[in-house]
Amino acid sequence: MFPGFSTRGPFDGTLGAGPISSKVFMKLATYKDGSRDGQLVVVSQDLHSAHYATGIASSLQQVLDDWNFYSPQLQDLSQAVNAGRTRHAFTFDPRRCMAPLPRAYQWLNGGAYLGHQELEHALLGTDMPASSTAEPLMHQANSDGFLGPCDPITGLREEWGIDFEATMAVVTGDVPVGSTDDNCLDSVRLVMLANDVSLRTVISHELTRGAGFLRGKPTTAFSPVAVTPDELGDAWQEGRLHLSLQSTWNGRKVGLCETGPEMHFHFGQLIAHAAKTRRLGAGSIIGSGAVSNRGTQDGDRREWPKGYGSIAEKRAMEALQDGQAKTDYMKAGDTLRIDMKGKNGHSVFGAIEQEVKDLAS
Amino acid sequence: MFPGFSTRGPFDGTLGAGPISSKVFMKLATYKDGSRDGQLVVVSQDLHSAHYATGIASSLQQVLDDWNFYSPQLQDLSQAVNAGRTRHAFTFDPRRCMAPLPRAYQWLNGGAYLGHQELEHALLGTDMPASSTAEPLMHQANSDGFLGPCDPITGLREEWGIDFEATMAVVTGDVPVGSTDDNCLDSVRLVMLANDVSLRTVISHELTRGAGFLRGKPTTAFSPVAVTPDELGDAWQEGRLHLSLQSTWNGRKVGLCETGPEMHFHFGQLIAHAAKTRRLGAGSIIGSGAVSNRGTQDGDRREWPKGYGSIAEKRAMEALQDGQAKTDYMKAGDTLRIDMKGKNGHSVFGAIEQEVKDLAS
Repeated sequence: MFPGFSTRGPFDGTLGAGPISSKVFMKLATYKDGSRDGQLVVVSQDLHSAHYATGIASSLQQVLDDWNFYSPQLQDLSQAVNAGRTRHAFTFDPRRCMAPLPRAYQWLNGGAYLGHQELEHALLGTDMPASSTAEPLMHQANSDGFLGPCDPITGLREEWGIDFEATMAVVTGDVPVGSTDDNCLDSVRLVMLANDVSLRTVISHELTRGAGFLRGKPTTAFSPVAVTPDELGDAWQEGRLHLSLQSTWNGRKVGLCETGPEMHFHFGQLIAHAAKTRRLGAGSIIGSGAVSNRGTQDGDRREWPKGYGSIAEKRAMEALQDGQAKTDYMKAGDTLRIDMKGKNGHSVFGAIEQEVKDLAS
Repeated sequence: MFPGFSTRGPFDGTLGAGPISSKVFMKLATYKDGSRDGQLVVVSQDLHSAHYATGIASSLQQVLDDWNFYSPQLQDLSQAVNAGRTRHAFTFDPRRCMAPLPRAYQWLNGGAYLGHQELEHALLGTDMPASSTAEPLMHQANSDGFLGPCDPITGLREEWGIDFEATMAVVTGDVPVGSTDDNCLDSVRLVMLANDVSLRTVISHELTRGAGFLRGKPTTAFSPVAVTPDELGDAWQEGRLHLSLQSTWNGRKVGLCETGPEMHFHFGQLIAHAAKTRRLGAGSIIGSGAVSNRGTQDGDRREWPKGYGSIAEKRAMEALQDGQAKTDYMKAGDTLRIDMKGKNGHSVFGAIEQEVKDLAS
């Protein structure tokens, strides 16, 4: 039905150091070069240096299309970069990055953190659907061109309610229709962060029409670097990443949410949900939805000590605490930073750092 | 924000017969070759012969990414094929075709034929939304791998309510955010037919969840050939194609719907709707939704002399005429044919001819 196979043969072991390891350790990024798909680069673990992957593959989609052929070669290069053994390594600069996949054939965003949806329903005054805990809410989002991690958010109107959503995402290999949760989890090739830019006023309108968020979700931005699950070590457990996601808005840290414990559906489950009635092609991006930690009750008052990863949540918190939302959505000049530190204190994916500018008049 | 430009310079006139014509006449298809994106071929006007475009470009996406560079060269080849002046032309075989774009970065399907939505609402017993005539209902559909025109429909379950939708679609170039209807219409590069395969039972479920059709729309199939608007001559007028779309189900002609007069939103309007809050990348596919012609009143009885282009419509007609729907959705072994004849009686896009088989157990 779909080829799904490259015309190349399998990796024959002669290009790398030995047979294919079952584990793959590497960090990948895509540098801007004026083309639509950019240039693939391998980035060191500490994000200090990088090396063009030109001799191996030019684009990340090319690698995903034939992962077993390319990934051992990229891993060899990665080891050399980490060991400082390459002559042509250069200082890694996230500002020169496109999204790791600058455009993709599929971007599905699921709502794995039910706390986020609970807040959204609280803000709208609606009930959580009965099926919320049984199956994820998921939508097909636009994937024809993403924002790089430091690209500004432009061309929008303030009255559309410009918001951010600090989100996790994975990139898959080929997923046959009807795959199990476990097989879907095995299909995860790369993990990254996303800012799922959202237009709250437009979403409210689109939801009345019944065909999804469509125009309420403009272009998503992704972290500088995409990382293999193995590279994440024991922070990656059974389809969940156990670290903290930091959101900083206009220089103020507004959220430090744990990504592991409250992720109701793990990535294997999110992928399997999508693949129930159709295959997913290599390079499909699956999101967790906005990362969110539930509040705690302190007497009469509800508190959210972990903060928030989207302004809609902040507004819901205000409405629940004081009867009305008072924080405005983003305006021209607003800045935003989304980052995640590893257990060693270093950024894992590099930071998403964006400014809202050049609004439409 | 997005490059949108190739690193190549503009077409310099030395490869073709002269300066770039403002009109582009050609028919393109993609042959299966075991790869994910297939091999681009140029097809003669009468669909009898074809020629690999290998010397010019390997994939249709490559051409769309740099249309002004490649299209004059492809047009030259097309003229040679039509004149019988090529040595390596071969007999065109739709069964060897993938979708013209075997995978795409975006597939947005809008509901331009309000008659179809009226029937769907009649079947569900719901009202048309008040905004129906003001803005199209549109959803983001999966584009990570399409079915070729003669690929079987497999892997589905009968209880999901397997249906077809005879649909028109266009492929765009780059569309800046906020483009006018006219500019959007100018962005149309190619026109084709689609079978927007639909799972009615799944759609009913997904619609209760509010995030769009998602799993209710499995993989879409497209016609063998994509055709430039200029090639369609005066049948293409102001964003609407004025011909008849034939649907044949299990060998019985069930629909012969006019595509022009009842298309409430033309393709320029559909594209502009999508581009209101975001740019669209080159190679975005925009659909018209199921082509449908409204019925006529004959005394007490409503009749639909043009037939139907989806079983859901047939069921709605039955419910309106006789109080209940009686036609079942598709089963294993069912066949389907969607075709459109030009004013000369020849197929314009080649036929979509599919069989439902290998259902999931």
